[in-house]
Amino acid sequence: MADPYDIRAGEVAITLPERFDASLYFIGRIRTPWTTREKCPRNPRESDAVCTIDVDERFAAALKGVETCSHLIVLYWMDRARRDLVQQRPRHYDETRGTFALRSPVRPNPIALSVVRLLKVEGTRLSVVGLDCLDGTPLLDLKPYFASTDAAPEAEVGWHRGRQG
Amino acid sequence: MADPYDIRAGEVAITLPERFDASLYFIGRIRTPWTTREKCPRNPRESDAVCTIDVDERFAAALKGVETCSHLIVLYWMDRARRDLVQQRPRHYDETRGTFALRSPVRPNPIALSVVRLLKVEGTRLSVVGLDCLDGTPLLDLKPYFASTDAAPEAEVGWHRGRQG
Repeated sequence: MADPYDIRAGEVAITLPERFDASLYFIGRIRTPWTTREKCPRNPRESDAVCTIDVDERFAAALKGVETCSHLIVLYWMDRARRDLVQQRPRHYDETRGTFALRSPVRPNPIALSVVRLLKVEGTRLSVVGLDCLDGTPLLDLKPYFASTDAAPEAEVGWHRGRQG
Repeated sequence: MADPYDIRAGEVAITLPERFDASLYFIGRIRTPWTTREKCPRNPRESDAVCTIDVDERFAAALKGVETCSHLIVLYWMDRARRDLVQQRPRHYDETRGTFALRSPVRPNPIALSVVRLLKVEGTRLSVVGLDCLDGTPLLDLKPYFASTDAAPEAEVGWHRGRQG
């Protein structure tokens, strides 16, 4: 079976820097129905599945007020992704594009971001809609979504125009 | 002069985990007109200043296609922020709230996120509107902004309702 993280024709890898510059804590885990990459939805709006975010007890007090938010920004760590590709050709696209023009998990810092709808908070467990990641994905951060600064409904991704998903 | 990162009455600090779980590369630098925290706009829509993102040459090829995006998500590292506060009372608010209900730079993983309007790409230099960070802030990632999954104009932050900024 082909390794889905193998390099494809036209893709470009670089040598990464020798040293890291900063470090992260995993602050919880994301629970989803998807246990293989193939089963994951192609993007977060492709599924209405309710997913669970389990925040570590250590950070329980940091959730005060979160329940008043209708939407959250979830940052998580794509721990299985290679980091050295600067040009990529995802499975469902025909052309090679730059990593910073794609939402692929493969990137120098594999931090993913999803905007989720918050259904409820019970202790350190959040129920949300709008995730598309693998079960067990490490959580990095939760932020309130402010429509005033985070919503840009007029935004366009030129290369993606006219495509489905 | 008071250290702006000092703890305030009602704020709660925790002991952070003993070990880190993952590491980051700084992939560029953000250039803004603001050299002290006091001079930074309170949020990214408070200023129309054109800011510059300098991506390291090593990642130049990763910008292919970025110029077709009207908006980008910029992730950057708040390298001066403490990481151990779970409840905070930002200067301009009256109440203590959980870190995950705030956009404060002080958080276990001080990754900040801004949605910016892309004006132009010249080589590895991007001109954008919508940043509010200090000059010299380390860059972590650039992502295309997809209105279909990232825009939630109906979102509400309950505790913030009726406030200005």
